Amino acid sequence: MRRVESTMLGSAARALCVLAVFGFEARASESVRPNIVLFLVDDLGWNDTEVEFAPQRAPGNVRARTPNVKRLAETGVRFTQAYAYPVCSPSRTSLMTGQSSARHRVTQWTREKDADPSGQGLPVVSPPGWRRNGLQPGEPTVASLLRDSGYRTVHVGKAHFGARTTDGEKPENLGFEVSIAGHCAGAPGSYSGEDGFGRRHPGWAVPELEAYHGLPIHLTDALTVEANREVERAVRDGKPFFLYLAHYAVHTPLTPHAPHVAAYRERGFSEREANYASLVAGVDGSLGSLLAQCERLGVAANTIVIFVSDNGGLATNERGSLDLDGADPARRYNFPLREGKGNAYEGGIRVPQIVAFCRRDERAPAQRQFPIAAGATSDAPTILEDLFPTILDLAGAARSTLDLPRARIVDGRSIVPLLDPESEAGRVERAARGDRAILVHYPHVWGPRGKGYEPFTALRVGDHKLIWFPCSPRFELFDLANDLGESRDLAAANEDLVKFLRERMIAELAARDALYPVLASTGEEVRP
Amino acid sequence: MRRVESTMLGSAARALCVLAVFGFEARASESVRPNIVLFLVDDLGWNDTEVEFAPQRAPGNVRARTPNVKRLAETGVRFTQAYAYPVCSPSRTSLMTGQSSARHRVTQWTREKDADPSGQGLPVVSPPGWRRNGLQPGEPTVASLLRDSGYRTVHVGKAHFGARTTDGEKPENLGFEVSIAGHCAGAPGSYSGEDGFGRRHPGWAVPELEAYHGLPIHLTDALTVEANREVERAVRDGKPFFLYLAHYAVHTPLTPHAPHVAAYRERGFSEREANYASLVAGVDGSLGSLLAQCERLGVAANTIVIFVSDNGGLATNERGSLDLDGADPARRYNFPLREGKGNAYEGGIRVPQIVAFCRRDERAPAQRQFPIAAGATSDAPTILEDLFPTILDLAGAARSTLDLPRARIVDGRSIVPLLDPESEAGRVERAARGDRAILVHYPHVWGPRGKGYEPFTALRVGDHKLIWFPCSPRFELFDLANDLGESRDLAAANEDLVKFLRERMIAELAARDALYPVLASTGEEVRP
Repeated sequence: MRRVESTMLGSAARALCVLAVFGFEARASESVRPNIVLFLVDDLGWNDTEVEFAPQRAPGNVRARTPNVKRLAETGVRFTQAYAYPVCSPSRTSLMTGQSSARHRVTQWTREKDADPSGQGLPVVSPPGWRRNGLQPGEPTVASLLRDSGYRTVHVGKAHFGARTTDGEKPENLGFEVSIAGHCAGAPGSYSGEDGFGRRHPGWAVPELEAYHGLPIHLTDALTVEANREVERAVRDGKPFFLYLAHYAVHTPLTPHAPHVAAYRERGFSEREANYASLVAGVDGSLGSLLAQCERLGVAANTIVIFVSDNGGLATNERGSLDLDGADPARRYNFPLREGKGNAYEGGIRVPQIVAFCRRDERAPAQRQFPIAAGATSDAPTILEDLFPTILDLAGAARSTLDLPRARIVDGRSIVPLLDPESEAGRVERAARGDRAILVHYPHVWGPRGKGYEPFTALRVGDHKLIWFPCSPRFELFDLANDLGESRDLAAANEDLVKFLRERMIAELAARDALYPVLASTGEEVRP
Repeated sequence: MRRVESTMLGSAARALCVLAVFGFEARASESVRPNIVLFLVDDLGWNDTEVEFAPQRAPGNVRARTPNVKRLAETGVRFTQAYAYPVCSPSRTSLMTGQSSARHRVTQWTREKDADPSGQGLPVVSPPGWRRNGLQPGEPTVASLLRDSGYRTVHVGKAHFGARTTDGEKPENLGFEVSIAGHCAGAPGSYSGEDGFGRRHPGWAVPELEAYHGLPIHLTDALTVEANREVERAVRDGKPFFLYLAHYAVHTPLTPHAPHVAAYRERGFSEREANYASLVAGVDGSLGSLLAQCERLGVAANTIVIFVSDNGGLATNERGSLDLDGADPARRYNFPLREGKGNAYEGGIRVPQIVAFCRRDERAPAQRQFPIAAGATSDAPTILEDLFPTILDLAGAARSTLDLPRARIVDGRSIVPLLDPESEAGRVERAARGDRAILVHYPHVWGPRGKGYEPFTALRVGDHKLIWFPCSPRFELFDLANDLGESRDLAAANEDLVKFLRERMIAELAARDALYPVLASTGEEVRP
């Protein structure tokens, strides 16, 4: 955690920024302002692309055909220890605010106003005070800060920030000047333009894409067209842009993305897995189209792409459930990780993350200022809120912290030094993260039930991960360096380490002013 | 032919119109200004949709799956005797200018500056003076006139008006305020966004659709998205719109439009014909999407669609050639018509034409002013230049003829009275057309060679059609009422009628100041 100080109040700073916008062209030669694309894929698993994040090549890497994601990784840095929250809204709120989920208290996914989607029947249930309506206007977001510092801020795709009928439902209320296709829902009613992207499912239909209705155009492609168009408009207007392109894919419904699905069917994939793989391939195609657009517009060497997922890959529900203990481990989703989305084990919270310029050009001013090592790997642990100060850093906005109220707390740490891992700054930052706690506090249940699909708090420090499960109260301890698949619970044999990490967990939760789950029977708080 | 008089010069009228635009909302209650969509399909054959234009249902009608075109016909009027020119540029120039091809002299398709694409080796060749560079700025077009009278004029799709590198290449120079995807080429380099719509074919790549590049989106769908978007913008801006939506489909290359193609393959169509049918189905889907967009925006009852093709359906080249005399007639393309695009027989020049409001609502002001009889048929002969005064009529622009220079000749006749065929006005107009000459003067050769694929002039008056072929000099005479397939040449047995019609042909050509083909050997003019 760190505190970002500002001596200016928001409104005064905003006025200053308006001046700054008009003076942008004059300033451009002095300070480099790269374009920034946050390319957020929904529910994409750790090894669902060709890019390898595990020490050994995973079956998922072999099955995937994602040449553009692969190219991106070859151009930049892959982060092998990147974390997110186990479900969507907490992750997105952390991205937007730079705060730990425990602090911003949007700890669970949101949808209907004032509703708690966590199921019933467990002995321990959601903290009553969690923010059921999600992110709302009134606090600085990465979008509002970039907007105020002169960036064109564009939201395309899934929002899922605020609950239905609240102001937070609309990205344009959260700092985005342009908002296309985002609302309260966490999934599309349909991926097909022919269905109006879910016209027949009130509340789930993707908004603002009426021009595509009735046409055989996949949602991923429609969003890409919209994004490409906004990129062009920003470039034409001479504005640096922050594009938050949040694909609905590869979330359920797992329907095919033609024509990509044909190749997977021919390769013998089951219908379900061909459909899923086609959604992944569609997202890869989107990335390729966007990279080409930046190239065509002459901004490739000045545009940074952050490719990341919002939680682990789906391993239940529409993908069926593969029994952890019974199935051939290598056939499990997210292998070598255990379980998937919604779960406490690594499959639920470890995400693919890549940062790269669209094209390498060491002479480009932005690349001189922010060197990104081509094809590099960083094993420093990161978590989604780190992207908030990272993006502000890249935009030059963090240094002036124009709109951040005094003492606004940001839990994230910029990963900019890690973009050149072998540099002095990179080594220093990696060392600094050695004792940093990665905290994933999820006092809820996502949907499916089962081991790990339950309320939990996970703390990773160094190579060790402690998980607290309050329902059938227990701690589990894993050594991720030697047991990435979390098959050997070391808690019983390492009482001292459990005690030490438990104290750290308690301290980290307290530092974030966390809310705790309660006993369903009494409403009494339960703490680790 | 008729002369449209105007007492005002263009520039003064333009100034007046600017005032009119700002005063539009105030005037709207007084004069009805329907939105007008010219839905132009390229190379669509007479019976390539479910809508029957022949006295008997044709095999093409049975094979097609075009529910939206069918619905349009049920909502409005189909014209069973609608003519176009045998190739593209003459037809489009007639649409734009209201003049007969013989008069505007863009008698052949255009492409490269100053080039004549007609092949060599025939005894008779193109008139040296034909306008090889196509339509150019400087004369009023239906678009410039509507723009000047306050319409938002939008061009989406294939232009093919002026030759490469000339000003006429760009629709924005010909009266369109918005121009998307049109240039000098008469075909797309590719229908696939994945190929950048022909990125690898310099000069053939469809321009201005970069946002779709790299994505599996079909050109027909991309154009529809663009059109839908412009419709929305016009409605939002409170402007009546003239949308010229000119699909590249169903021109070659005959590649499939997924997902439509699957249904035709399953029905046993050959690969080539499944591809072709899928292009037709794609266009039908485009129409459906556009109709739904107008409905959604609340303008369906105030929007008129003119659905038409620019020449007969392709019956050679990529579709192979079916020998006229050998094959089962019912299997011929364009059956019951003879031959297809580029040819003198009806298959080359008879086109499907439908005019309808997007939705019937007799109480809508536009429909009170312009009654269109639902499901009606008009057998009055029409030709493409008729759509110029028709559109001006519908827009209320013809009555003021704001920008038309004094004595500008318009050969077209408005078909507005025919929209309610059984009305008094409809019967009068049908009778008035009884002796009108339909003249198709094509002193060139399109490409393929064969009977009818050669220079010709065709004259239809009443039920009779006289064709003059200068290459192997001859006249042919057909009675279309009794021999729609033109299988019985009546010329030898009806010398008096040939003589009479030949004199009429000579007079009609002279009245249009036509240019004549020349002998390749001497350069001497050849006349009928």
